[in-house]
Amino acid sequence: MFLYTKNFEEQKAKAMEGLSKALAEGKVDEDIITLLEKINALENYFTTSSCSGRISVMEMPHFGDKVNSVWLGKWHREVTIEEVFEAIGKHKSGQLWFLVRSPILHVGARTLEDAVKLLNLAIGLGFKYSNIKSVSHRKLLVEIRSTERMDVPLGADGELWVSEDYIRRIVGIANDQLRRFKGKLRRLEEEVGKLSQSQ
Amino acid sequence: MFLYTKNFEEQKAKAMEGLSKALAEGKVDEDIITLLEKINALENYFTTSSCSGRISVMEMPHFGDKVNSVWLGKWHREVTIEEVFEAIGKHKSGQLWFLVRSPILHVGARTLEDAVKLLNLAIGLGFKYSNIKSVSHRKLLVEIRSTERMDVPLGADGELWVSEDYIRRIVGIANDQLRRFKGKLRRLEEEVGKLSQSQ
Repeated sequence: MFLYTKNFEEQKAKAMEGLSKALAEGKVDEDIITLLEKINALENYFTTSSCSGRISVMEMPHFGDKVNSVWLGKWHREVTIEEVFEAIGKHKSGQLWFLVRSPILHVGARTLEDAVKLLNLAIGLGFKYSNIKSVSHRKLLVEIRSTERMDVPLGADGELWVSEDYIRRIVGIANDQLRRFKGKLRRLEEEVGKLSQSQ
Repeated sequence: MFLYTKNFEEQKAKAMEGLSKALAEGKVDEDIITLLEKINALENYFTTSSCSGRISVMEMPHFGDKVNSVWLGKWHREVTIEEVFEAIGKHKSGQLWFLVRSPILHVGARTLEDAVKLLNLAIGLGFKYSNIKSVSHRKLLVEIRSTERMDVPLGADGELWVSEDYIRRIVGIANDQLRRFKGKLRRLEEEVGKLSQSQ
């Protein structure tokens, strides 16, 4: 395959600078740092952004309006019922949602072949929604994503539509999903070093 | 860009044969047929699978176990409250979920450049989760997907966790999402012909 990223070294250096800054400011999810370091230690890859997956309570004017959305609570770990209730208590207007999002990593690759190798590794480890996000000489970007997800409307305009018991149940399901995708992240961390072998 | 699909004509012929069969058997969502025809009329593309987006009620042993999941109700159009209640009434065991899924189209492309052109068109028309699913000489596959989605637990093992009123509300939100992604499909149908101009 002939497609490769022009100025790969330059792009990687810039991304590493951004990462150092984000790390210094505590803006990187703690449980993903080792994985990022392992990927960035590889000659042909660098990370550009990441989230280790999360459970959240969000208020938004209407579904999909990210710009005007506000997180009332956000956790990259298992949550307790009490934490979720506390977040819900802050709700005032708009739609209130309980959300689970899988981990997401964006990784720049040197060549298209490198991109496809990482894509296949990730899919094989259970990150089934992984894909190639952009393909050009300017940017070869792999997106690593898993299938776990919840989008549950809880209420609107200050009114709650569900019972305390219901919230207890969906928090249980969300924590199950979180444990599952954190396990996948650990496996990726163990396996990603393999990508250096065939160079 | 140098990457292209080997045996493109052969693959397209085979895909068209499969599509004819699926059409004859009524297995293709009606409101997506014109779009598929327009894509397949283009020299450098062919569709391999598609869904026009749907609202469903599903019973599954646990989240993500697709193999043992059963649809109690599935609609590629707006639903009524009564239809959803009827589906819920069939629930017996496992987890009961109310789901919305955006349209999804898989499109084979002749060259990587063709793939990227379609990807950019789709993203520009609001199909923001579109991506390149696989990249090789064997297969260049674009996935067209949008962001609308709901995953709402309704109950388990015969027990319902939510009120009738809650179901009424989430059906309203689901119908909103459906109208939105059907609108995107119509715009894609109008615009996809543009991809033939620069050849």
